[in-house]
Amino acid sequence: MQTPFHTIGLVGKYDNQDMEASVRALGEFLRARGHAVLLASQTAEHLGIEDFPRRALHDLATESDAVVVLGGDGTMLSIARELAPHGVPLIGINQGRLGFLTDIMVDDMFDAVAEILSGQYVAEERILLNGQVRRGGECVFEATAFNDVVVGKGGSGRVIDLEIAINSEFVYSQRADGLVVTSPTGTTAYALSAGGPIVHPTLEAVALVPICPHTLSARPIVVSSHSRIELHLTYADDARVHFDGQHHFDLMSGDHVWITRASRTVTLLHPHSYSYYDTLRQKLHWGKKL
Amino acid sequence: MQTPFHTIGLVGKYDNQDMEASVRALGEFLRARGHAVLLASQTAEHLGIEDFPRRALHDLATESDAVVVLGGDGTMLSIARELAPHGVPLIGINQGRLGFLTDIMVDDMFDAVAEILSGQYVAEERILLNGQVRRGGECVFEATAFNDVVVGKGGSGRVIDLEIAINSEFVYSQRADGLVVTSPTGTTAYALSAGGPIVHPTLEAVALVPICPHTLSARPIVVSSHSRIELHLTYADDARVHFDGQHHFDLMSGDHVWITRASRTVTLLHPHSYSYYDTLRQKLHWGKKL
Amino acid sequence: MQTPFHTIGLVGKYDNQDMEASVRALGEFLRARGHAVLLASQTAEHLGIEDFPRRALHDLATESDAVVVLGGDGTMLSIARELAPHGVPLIGINQGRLGFLTDIMVDDMFDAVAEILSGQYVAEERILLNGQVRRGGECVFEATAFNDVVVGKGGSGRVIDLEIAINSEFVYSQRADGLVVTSPTGTTAYALSAGGPIVHPTLEAVALVPICPHTLSARPIVVSSHSRIELHLTYADDARVHFDGQHHFDLMSGDHVWITRASRTVTLLHPHSYSYYDTLRQKLHWGKKL
Amino acid sequence: MQTPFHTIGLVGKYDNQDMEASVRALGEFLRARGHAVLLASQTAEHLGIEDFPRRALHDLATESDAVVVLGGDGTMLSIARELAPHGVPLIGINQGRLGFLTDIMVDDMFDAVAEILSGQYVAEERILLNGQVRRGGECVFEATAFNDVVVGKGGSGRVIDLEIAINSEFVYSQRADGLVVTSPTGTTAYALSAGGPIVHPTLEAVALVPICPHTLSARPIVVSSHSRIELHLTYADDARVHFDGQHHFDLMSGDHVWITRASRTVTLLHPHSYSYYDTLRQKLHWGKKL
Repeated sequence: MQTPFHTIGLVGKYDNQDMEASVRALGEFLRARGHAVLLASQTAEHLGIEDFPRRALHDLATESDAVVVLGGDGTMLSIARELAPHGVPLIGINQGRLGFLTDIMVDDMFDAVAEILSGQYVAEERILLNGQVRRGGECVFEATAFNDVVVGKGGSGRVIDLEIAINSEFVYSQRADGLVVTSPTGTTAYALSAGGPIVHPTLEAVALVPICPHTLSARPIVVSSHSRIELHLTYADDARVHFDGQHHFDLMSGDHVWITRASRTVTLLHPHSYSYYDTLRQKLHWGKKL
Repeated sequence: MQTPFHTIGLVGKYDNQDMEASVRALGEFLRARGHAVLLASQTAEHLGIEDFPRRALHDLATESDAVVVLGGDGTMLSIARELAPHGVPLIGINQGRLGFLTDIMVDDMFDAVAEILSGQYVAEERILLNGQVRRGGECVFEATAFNDVVVGKGGSGRVIDLEIAINSEFVYSQRADGLVVTSPTGTTAYALSAGGPIVHPTLEAVALVPICPHTLSARPIVVSSHSRIELHLTYADDARVHFDGQHHFDLMSGDHVWITRASRTVTLLHPHSYSYYDTLRQKLHWGKKL
Repeated sequence: MQTPFHTIGLVGKYDNQDMEASVRALGEFLRARGHAVLLASQTAEHLGIEDFPRRALHDLATESDAVVVLGGDGTMLSIARELAPHGVPLIGINQGRLGFLTDIMVDDMFDAVAEILSGQYVAEERILLNGQVRRGGECVFEATAFNDVVVGKGGSGRVIDLEIAINSEFVYSQRADGLVVTSPTGTTAYALSAGGPIVHPTLEAVALVPICPHTLSARPIVVSSHSRIELHLTYADDARVHFDGQHHFDLMSGDHVWITRASRTVTLLHPHSYSYYDTLRQKLHWGKKL
Repeated sequence: MQTPFHTIGLVGKYDNQDMEASVRALGEFLRARGHAVLLASQTAEHLGIEDFPRRALHDLATESDAVVVLGGDGTMLSIARELAPHGVPLIGINQGRLGFLTDIMVDDMFDAVAEILSGQYVAEERILLNGQVRRGGECVFEATAFNDVVVGKGGSGRVIDLEIAINSEFVYSQRADGLVVTSPTGTTAYALSAGGPIVHPTLEAVALVPICPHTLSARPIVVSSHSRIELHLTYADDARVHFDGQHHFDLMSGDHVWITRASRTVTLLHPHSYSYYDTLRQKLHWGKKL
């Protein structure tokens, strides 16, 4: 299972105090082990690191055999969306709290990264969602989400009315604060607070989770990721669509939002000791072995 | 239980097509039965009804022995908040769907109102909530709610951080979309979609219902209505407080919202046949007798 | 899509008053349309119908090109489990309330069955679960479930302690009333009352839904149907495992229950007009088009 | 607030290893501080402690000014039910995990008990529930519960059908695994796993929490503790009623279970530092101050 990870790209969240030391240390560690190291330009600039060749994010993805992302899950979400088209595998290191996507603690990063790059890794392929806002038959906005596409009420606090169809088959109409359409990855994020189930990250599925629905018998629904989810905003004087909570677009009554599986996936590399359920247990305070 | 309902005030929601006929018919019916009838000025004006003496809302409350409100629950919420200080009992008639507060169907209104005014009624006293926004130690906004006071995130979709105390005793901190503080009346409104319990309308209680809380073990809490609920918005770049979803005020990080039982209550009059549980069953599609 | 449904088997639930007339009428209708009709022996005997050749259930499955089941979802569950090894497709007709599996109303049965048998059908393949009770390393009980395998507390009302693993990877320990392991088909049955999500019937998935878990952050989990779910009953003085609520086996502390996807599936035939979501909306009182 | 606690009764759960040392130490500590100490006969016998005068439980209650209970919440439930008629205030000390009722950790017991007995305490009055099983118009079983009265299905796993009325007013019929009728104290016990709200222990309220209800719009209901809750078991081939999970009675189809507030309450004494919400936060892993 030896794999040729020659060139390694590094991306660091730059508004974090200790980040500079971590990025520098990891870069040097990798270079000492014989890897070529490229640093994302923005990271280099903001952290003031001049020791490694700089690359714009997309060149970094093209030239690297793997990209290490240092930051929290939020950082990984945005980097993964951007690098997904390039297919380069990603390794996530968190500086602070354990993340679902950044599952290597910074204190363990040398061992964990070395292990992975020596070929001792678990590769996990994760889907992304593509969302289109359609108005009058035309696409007026389009974006990608790793976690979720959320159609929700705006600041006025007024509920919205949605009609939901899947592959053109009518599902239900709903008056609610909103609806979360989530990838398996996103089921441990916002959808979970809205009452959704946890879906294993490698299942080819998408979950629809209503937010504060007026119909009390509304329940989350899990369908194939190859479905086309069609949301029709039948009424809203103030609504928005959110992609991973990071991109937003204002909606109007009558808008349609179509959500499909993006054609490109993201590959995450984990050390062999990685267990998705360990992370769940730690983050959700679940019971250990008795 | 004979009660002297001599003068009856009428208030009608004016953006409803059939309202003019209903208000006119009810007014004439009451006059024919010997009651003095007063019509709210705004209702009279918007519906173009000139047959009854007009009164501004507060004068109507002062001069009437009971006020009949025609409209939906939303109309009753706003009228009740405004008339509460006057203590005049209210009768609710809905033009469309059965309401929790407007529990007399317009088709039954003659019989039901006649029955009530002849003294055959059930009087139900309901509490209101008073909410104060405090900033830098001063009250910068104050309003009353019949259903609920909701502190919630704004249109940005970003979660807020709250610390909750009851009677100065710290309860918990919470990262969430928001928190509903609801009177018993409000437990069948927004709080119910957020997962809250139903609290009988005459119980002297207030419920705190988190909206999409990040802490998965968060649960609704029901406490005495004589408690002072203190919400401290420790972080929010975009948050608002809503009173019955009808009044709104923008909040800032650091704001406190204090919620207490209003000193004045609202008295609703129902026909003898009224059953709170009948309304629940109908509106929530609950099972009838087997 | 014309398919050669020559011989049709009929099975009817026999403790239902109107069943005799329905079975007889359907048999005659099919014979009149040129099909060979076989009647399950037990149905024939209990209903006193002598007009059609009788077959034991397994012979019926072997000799028929399709089997029509008249009854409720409970009847379909038991017949489907028994006929699954034979691979014969099933058509479900309900005598009373609309069912998830018996989705043709008896009043529509002539048209619907004729349509299906003329080749105008939607075929839906559904998975079954296989459950094994292992004690001291040996399998002491084994059964199949169409809906769900439920490990639950017994009549004493005392909670049980479970450790759950998936593909030998530890998931969590749980103190609860029990755990539902459900096929997609079963997600609209018991698992739904326990708070589980709805999983589309054709998704290759299995859901784990805790029943009244003591850990408040416990949530339903949806995983690939090709997983091996391993439940280890670490403590129980009174527990049982239920298969579709129809077969039961008493468990002891230390028992393991292993649940996997059964190798054989069940094929359901529906008329072209069939919509899974229509059934959901009707049975769960969900909103129609606005 | 000085109160004359002269004679102190001690009750210890006797199947706990370290209990003997704790009981003995506490007894000696109290005697050294000038209190008369009485030991429950069963405790004395099982733990083999001969240093203090023994009393049967009811005599202990009559002769003591306060009773200290050492054990877990389960011990406190059974002792409190038994001593409630005597009105003697109770102090709870837990040997292991923090309890809702046994809120003093054994390591802090000298200070905490001394503080309380010197008059520095918070007294909390808690209600009990009385449950009657009525069959053919007669009471065939009666018991008291501190936490909850649960009507639930038996070991067969078959659902039961209930009709619920409150003060003779019909509420709803329900097909479910069961129903929890809980005092405020019980809302942090079984009712919480069943999805019920937390009700502050001093609120004069009772909550009805359905267990796995088939009607998806069923919700917990909180009503006045002065209500009479009437459950009518319209169908069950196997059902039981449980009182605090400690007493059980087999039910038959047609049985009625009537639940009312018991006339006697239980008084718990806590140290001044006691906070109900502290206990909630610790036990439910809720967020601390940010």
